[in-house]
Amino acid sequence: MTVLLGVDVGGTITSTGAVTVDGEILVERRAPTHGEGPGRALATLLGLIADVRRAAERRGSAVTAIGVGVPGPVDTVAGRVGEHVPHVPELAGRPLAAELGTHSGLPAFVDNDVNALALGEWMFGAGRGARSLVVLAPGTGFGAGIVLDGRLVRGIAGFGGELGHTPIKFDGPPCWCGGHGCLAVYASGRGIAEAARGRVAGDADAPLLRAAGGDPQAITARLVFERAAAGDALAAAVVDEACQALGAMLGTVVNGLNPEVVIVTGGVAASFAAREARILEAARAYAFAPALAATRITIVPGDKRTSMRGAAALALYEQGRGGHAS
Amino acid sequence: MTVLLGVDVGGTITSTGAVTVDGEILVERRAPTHGEGPGRALATLLGLIADVRRAAERRGSAVTAIGVGVPGPVDTVAGRVGEHVPHVPELAGRPLAAELGTHSGLPAFVDNDVNALALGEWMFGAGRGARSLVVLAPGTGFGAGIVLDGRLVRGIAGFGGELGHTPIKFDGPPCWCGGHGCLAVYASGRGIAEAARGRVAGDADAPLLRAAGGDPQAITARLVFERAAAGDALAAAVVDEACQALGAMLGTVVNGLNPEVVIVTGGVAASFAAREARILEAARAYAFAPALAATRITIVPGDKRTSMRGAAALALYEQGRGGHAS
Repeated sequence: MTVLLGVDVGGTITSTGAVTVDGEILVERRAPTHGEGPGRALATLLGLIADVRRAAERRGSAVTAIGVGVPGPVDTVAGRVGEHVPHVPELAGRPLAAELGTHSGLPAFVDNDVNALALGEWMFGAGRGARSLVVLAPGTGFGAGIVLDGRLVRGIAGFGGELGHTPIKFDGPPCWCGGHGCLAVYASGRGIAEAARGRVAGDADAPLLRAAGGDPQAITARLVFERAAAGDALAAAVVDEACQALGAMLGTVVNGLNPEVVIVTGGVAASFAAREARILEAARAYAFAPALAATRITIVPGDKRTSMRGAAALALYEQGRGGHAS
Repeated sequence: MTVLLGVDVGGTITSTGAVTVDGEILVERRAPTHGEGPGRALATLLGLIADVRRAAERRGSAVTAIGVGVPGPVDTVAGRVGEHVPHVPELAGRPLAAELGTHSGLPAFVDNDVNALALGEWMFGAGRGARSLVVLAPGTGFGAGIVLDGRLVRGIAGFGGELGHTPIKFDGPPCWCGGHGCLAVYASGRGIAEAARGRVAGDADAPLLRAAGGDPQAITARLVFERAAAGDALAAAVVDEACQALGAMLGTVVNGLNPEVVIVTGGVAASFAAREARILEAARAYAFAPALAATRITIVPGDKRTSMRGAAALALYEQGRGGHAS
């Protein structure tokens, strides 16, 4: 049996798996990305790849290609990681596809992690068989990926699909990306936590701050959602704004691209799933009714395995289209 | 020589031309859309088509197909005009492609006018040869069209490319489309005029209102731009907000789709062209610098001929891809 080797390089954990052409994960391994020390992410990557490849081969499977998802933009023509990968700085500017190809003797493909995730959802997941789909992935940041007419939208400089950093409030506050009023400011894990910290600032008695043990830095998106569900008005206001912002982006996606499927996934998706009715109500305030009715919207919590399977889907996709490999 | 017959159905004027495969207009005719009375738009259309076809044939050219752009969403699979065409209500729900095909004996294709315009810019105009382009067309309303990897983005229900009605301010005011904080509210002709009317309301001495002869309804986007250029502070504030809003959409397009070319055209483009530096400054506040650097942005005033040529491009595009004709 032939398998693809999928690698999801995360800011803290790197996950690697051998995945069948049907999306089944045969073998998987993970390790701390920087586990061997700073500047050792590449060593971690190579170690995991060798390890999973051996394990797959012991089971009689042949690895045909490697796909790697990294947390930042990628020049996919050159197979080179972009300069903006703050969570794994040592990979910045690196010709990773060529390096992995030389090292393994296999075709290797590298792309943004959420582009890979979008391919995974399209080939193996909730968007299987769809002509077009958009993946919105609120995690610590806010990634996104777009597949239209069976092709991943990469754009001319590899930024295609960066919907998390498009303005949904043009006179809104600065985003850490340098933009203003980005979706990520309102609906990513970091954005939600920062919005809540802003609201409790100067109020030592704020219940949310007390729930965080008095430490603003201990306020996380998860805590904000939990306290909102428990009736905390301040937390509920932050969550409501996050849901409205996500609904606005659904409106943008539905009217602007009108894909067959939109999948909301990523680390914060489980929290958003409990607010699905509110999010869809918000989407109705922005999208054309017939366009919205034609698009299937689904919220599915994502995890490391989904991302890893996405990286394998990237390898399968690139092989299928005769993509430029190392 | 073979030619395409392009028809741009406008709210007031319908333009029809015989266009070569190189985009040259050989013959053109126009007539008031409702000139023969209400409910007579189809008769106008058929009359113009017959007229231009005869004129082209007299010059020795054979018409191979008809392309029609209409001001509203279209179900392009069925060749049926959507229900929302407020400027030409009699066409709503009409199987126009089949009707024209039967009447003329030629393959006929119908799509949204700005989708056709995008194809025209891509095949014949400022986006010629680009792999991907986005057309933003502020006129009375705000149309848009997207071509990615050589394909028009139509979406699952024909709403693909409706960027004029995507929220750029999620907590912004209602739009006439039923949405909220749409780009059209800030940067279309109607939106700019209405914003200016809102600002002069209750102030009979407002210079802009006096420039309009005291009649708020006489305030047009053109007048607002003219008075802004002449130093009217109120008009300048409206224009500045329009430029910022357009810059935000450029940020969305550049980060979200990262096309090779973005073309701003349509009836208000000439006014925006004089503010290009301000618009690009605004875009820089939203877009990733390397993504923006890779995308060519150009502002080109559009006219009826551009739209008509776009409709001919639609016919050429559909014939080229073996599109579903009547």
